[in-house]
Amino acid sequence: MVLERPYAAGTRLEAVPVVPASSRVRGVDVGALRLDPRGFWGRRQEVNTSATFAHCREWMEQLGWLSNFDRVAAGAALDERTGWVFSDSEVYKLLEGMAWELGRSPDEALESDFAALVDRVARAQDDDGYLGTAFGHAGQAPRYSDLSMGHELYNMGHLLQAAVARWRTGHPDDLLVHVARRAADHICAEFGEGARDGVCGHAEIEVALAEAGRAFGERRYLDQARLFVSRRGQGTLPVPPLLSAEYFQDDVPVRDADVLRGHAVRALYLSAGAVDVAVDTDDDDLFATLEQQWENTVARRTYLTGGMGSRHQDEGFGDDWELPADRAYCETCAGVASIMFAWRLFLSTGDVRYPDLIERTLFNVVATSPSADGRAFFYANPLHQREAGAPAEDGVNTRAEGGVRAPWFEVSCCPTNVARTLASLAAYMVATDDDGLLLLQYAAGDVSTGGWRLHVETEYPDDARVTIVVKEVGAGASRLRLRIPEWADGATVETAGRPARAVSPGWFDVHTVAAGDVVTLTLPQRPRLVFPDPRIDALRGTVALERGPLVLCVESRDLPDPAALEDVRLLPLPPRPLADGARAHAVIVEPATGTSVLPYGPSARAGRVARSVDVTFVPYHRWAERGPSQMRVFVPLATDTSLDAGSLSGTEA
Amino acid sequence: MVLERPYAAGTRLEAVPVVPASSRVRGVDVGALRLDPRGFWGRRQEVNTSATFAHCREWMEQLGWLSNFDRVAAGAALDERTGWVFSDSEVYKLLEGMAWELGRSPDEALESDFAALVDRVARAQDDDGYLGTAFGHAGQAPRYSDLSMGHELYNMGHLLQAAVARWRTGHPDDLLVHVARRAADHICAEFGEGARDGVCGHAEIEVALAEAGRAFGERRYLDQARLFVSRRGQGTLPVPPLLSAEYFQDDVPVRDADVLRGHAVRALYLSAGAVDVAVDTDDDDLFATLEQQWENTVARRTYLTGGMGSRHQDEGFGDDWELPADRAYCETCAGVASIMFAWRLFLSTGDVRYPDLIERTLFNVVATSPSADGRAFFYANPLHQREAGAPAEDGVNTRAEGGVRAPWFEVSCCPTNVARTLASLAAYMVATDDDGLLLLQYAAGDVSTGGWRLHVETEYPDDARVTIVVKEVGAGASRLRLRIPEWADGATVETAGRPARAVSPGWFDVHTVAAGDVVTLTLPQRPRLVFPDPRIDALRGTVALERGPLVLCVESRDLPDPAALEDVRLLPLPPRPLADGARAHAVIVEPATGTSVLPYGPSARAGRVARSVDVTFVPYHRWAERGPSQMRVFVPLATDTSLDAGSLSGTEA
Repeated sequence: MVLERPYAAGTRLEAVPVVPASSRVRGVDVGALRLDPRGFWGRRQEVNTSATFAHCREWMEQLGWLSNFDRVAAGAALDERTGWVFSDSEVYKLLEGMAWELGRSPDEALESDFAALVDRVARAQDDDGYLGTAFGHAGQAPRYSDLSMGHELYNMGHLLQAAVARWRTGHPDDLLVHVARRAADHICAEFGEGARDGVCGHAEIEVALAEAGRAFGERRYLDQARLFVSRRGQGTLPVPPLLSAEYFQDDVPVRDADVLRGHAVRALYLSAGAVDVAVDTDDDDLFATLEQQWENTVARRTYLTGGMGSRHQDEGFGDDWELPADRAYCETCAGVASIMFAWRLFLSTGDVRYPDLIERTLFNVVATSPSADGRAFFYANPLHQREAGAPAEDGVNTRAEGGVRAPWFEVSCCPTNVARTLASLAAYMVATDDDGLLLLQYAAGDVSTGGWRLHVETEYPDDARVTIVVKEVGAGASRLRLRIPEWADGATVETAGRPARAVSPGWFDVHTVAAGDVVTLTLPQRPRLVFPDPRIDALRGTVALERGPLVLCVESRDLPDPAALEDVRLLPLPPRPLADGARAHAVIVEPATGTSVLPYGPSARAGRVARSVDVTFVPYHRWAERGPSQMRVFVPLATDTSLDAGSLSGTEA
Repeated sequence: MVLERPYAAGTRLEAVPVVPASSRVRGVDVGALRLDPRGFWGRRQEVNTSATFAHCREWMEQLGWLSNFDRVAAGAALDERTGWVFSDSEVYKLLEGMAWELGRSPDEALESDFAALVDRVARAQDDDGYLGTAFGHAGQAPRYSDLSMGHELYNMGHLLQAAVARWRTGHPDDLLVHVARRAADHICAEFGEGARDGVCGHAEIEVALAEAGRAFGERRYLDQARLFVSRRGQGTLPVPPLLSAEYFQDDVPVRDADVLRGHAVRALYLSAGAVDVAVDTDDDDLFATLEQQWENTVARRTYLTGGMGSRHQDEGFGDDWELPADRAYCETCAGVASIMFAWRLFLSTGDVRYPDLIERTLFNVVATSPSADGRAFFYANPLHQREAGAPAEDGVNTRAEGGVRAPWFEVSCCPTNVARTLASLAAYMVATDDDGLLLLQYAAGDVSTGGWRLHVETEYPDDARVTIVVKEVGAGASRLRLRIPEWADGATVETAGRPARAVSPGWFDVHTVAAGDVVTLTLPQRPRLVFPDPRIDALRGTVALERGPLVLCVESRDLPDPAALEDVRLLPLPPRPLADGARAHAVIVEPATGTSVLPYGPSARAGRVARSVDVTFVPYHRWAERGPSQMRVFVPLATDTSLDAGSLSGTEA
């Protein structure tokens, strides 16, 4: 089942984001699925191209993050440097997004913007290949003097990822590729076996070096990635005040851990890099522990949205079952990183659980972050907003939280991470293997890869009928594999000339398709009640609603009295579908007037039903689009112990 | 009802921690109640004296926080300065504790330690009265160049509080008093009307200047305190990256706020200072808003333990009803600061709610922090520990969290705050007014104040019978007022020659007592179930146990299987009393094996009863004393929706 061995067989110039040395499933080109611009994802990809790229570049220009490169190039004093030490990485993530976009859809103006940015970056590279605007120049701390928090390798990791995207989209001789190779060579010399025994406080260089090794055919980049992965967890990083080794995943070696912990984005980037290393070095033990870590993390430390990271403090994972809705951090970047991790596990295993989680994360984390116009973003994605937000006066939301999408952040990692993900999105929706084509995610558009041509018609997720018109079939591999999502109990598939038949969640194979065949997948549309595991203390006695792949939520602006959001109690009756949400039966509770000064008392009887209401649920991903609002995903059940006995009897159903 | 006016009438040399210009109730001397060293508080006070003072001094010596003063005095290079910018304050808080202790119980060795410390501090004072080891000397940033985070006024505030304690305990000419007055004069010159228009990022100087003004008879110190209070909330503090104006309470003026928010200790110190200003300037509006802020904060943002501060991030208050047990921060210092705030409101109003909250906070926050030997401390006081802690290898727990008491912290504000509180504890237990004596807190010992002499016999809180033997009665004021705690439904009082009668929570007055009278108060001993307000999402479907003033908890080490802590479900039946805890009926639930990869599913049926158990509850204040343990205060009820219908029927009660 080995599909390719780039180190052995040379390199392959294809616009595929992740190309392991061997895999069970093969990723496709970012252009393999042309998304219909009227569809859910096509619209977002179009906005990403037409608005978000320029938006990010303008902010970085305005804040001086780009001119940091010019100042280094000019040998100017760097005490005027602006931005955090990791601001370089935003430029590289933008370049990565632009590279995928150009690979998918060439555009002269974008090409010229790209070249101009690369030129500014390249001029800042030091003679020995080091590239970074925050260390090592006049008036700055020495290079690598703060491995814990300096982010130098993290930044260069994103540089490599951008260059890999450029290389794979048909530009092996691009200036960016040369710059990145020199940087990678510098890193290997500086941190190689027998040289400096360190790792970067923010994982990223691992996954970047592994991918650069694959793209550029340089096995030693992979070896360096392997070294970095194996060095972590040995406690080599000095721990800054108020942090911990766990924050950097430097507490336990990757191969000894059993669950993700510490800073969520760090943990997930590291895991993605470790999968690359495990796969390309045939390290089955390492791979197995990473699968187990994923399973444990998803089972105990992941939100209904697919979001990861329970704590604002340290932007970290919490303990098992620590999943508070109101203080859910669920950083957008952690969603992106979770997709990176899951995608790699999928390529190696073909396990349907990975694209299942990717769908959940795409619709409920990645799609939640950007505003409809692509010029404002959520950084944190809580599942309960207690106080409606207020926009920052100067447009820069310095806090990751706040209940409103902000144009930019002091730590502005999320906008560019969304940009690079949307630009390469199609590559996570379709795959191939020896037996045929796999449709992993459903979106209107046209698939063209490996001899296959499909036309997909759907208004998914608003409508859950997906019609697949087969136009050409790949040579010698005529199986069309469909992912029936984990939530899709009651799905049916209709194939040419055969009546619709029920299919179960998991893979459904249409074993031999031919040009002209039409396959129709119908996924259940009804809103569903979803109950949390009782070990999640913060969600006890609540229920959420989902519809298709969408997590739904209640916004205070949809209630007759916005202040009543905390007094809504849901009746566990089947909700009714709305165009793209749901309506559910509920009551409004009037809190009992307590006799105690404190909010604790001798009785559980703490409220009575004031009235019945129908509550509108809307897709979580669009919350606060209509303006600041209070919001909650998990709503308390009317059956909890806080209601006066009998007070429910008079309510309508 | 005006009891005194120090600014008008000169000063009073009495060892009373807080002396407003006017008040309804008068505080007593720290020596007015001699605690029996065998009693709950007497034992802790004794350990504080015999162990904690030396422990704190040794750590500060070892870490160089004391030699920072020596280096300033010697004009040495300060690039070797160790500790955070606020480390000076720990020395001052220790001095304050030692001063109260010496006032209560003179001791030659302690006196000599005190003088030696004061000498080192005094030598570091600059010629113009400025005192601080972190700014303004060779190689350091200029004075007041970082008002947001520099803590210079905060540090000097604690210096003033130490000096006030020294002054009031009979040493008006002490070197420390002279040092503090020079520092206060410097501050008035530097920050007075028309001078530098700033406030300190950490409130403390307000309460300190007000008290210094009262003690030293300097009205202009009060005026400066008033200025600082009125300047805050105008947004003058530069907001450092990732923080907010709310963190410093610089978002809304004190008189316009309706609830405490931002960093909890800052908010509470500020509130205490604002009460002092309101009272001494007859600012009734300001006083009224502070009462309302207290009421709202206690009703919606306070834990069952009296702990305040829901967030690790920013050590801050959360939104209303944001009171997660597992991530409760409840910093020990916030408990101390809450007592400072409530005590001041009490002196002015005589309202029983304030000593009620003080009792709750003393037994469940302040008493929780120190270990039995007084040499290790909790910084954060969560109400649910999911993973048992592990002691830091070098003894310094750099993190505020961790589930084990640590000898010291990088930010080590709590040990010295506990020390100064325990040393002055008696002053918060008794009070007087025009009509007689008030017993606010119950502890074995002898009261001697204002002509009154009482002998109090009790093993409270282990035993809830309190016997008060009246030995002398103050002239012309023979009413003995007893606080019947808010939780004490079913209390009885027996007075000389009369049968026991039921009394209600609130004040109970024995109108005319005489020498020789014996008053016996019997408080209910039975463990109580306590239910959270249903708006506290994180506690829905749970119940806690209290016994007397003590919040109880379950520790995993008391369960047959420690791992079962998260599977315990309490039956809402009356718990049985144990010697100092309780035993409650519960079941252990076996979680249902989910079919989903994620911890969410289509059914609320997520477990079945595996067996019945009796669960031992111990006082929360002593948790982890027997070693690291998982712990929870609020335990899920067996009646929640997560149990298989009918699976409870077979359990014994």
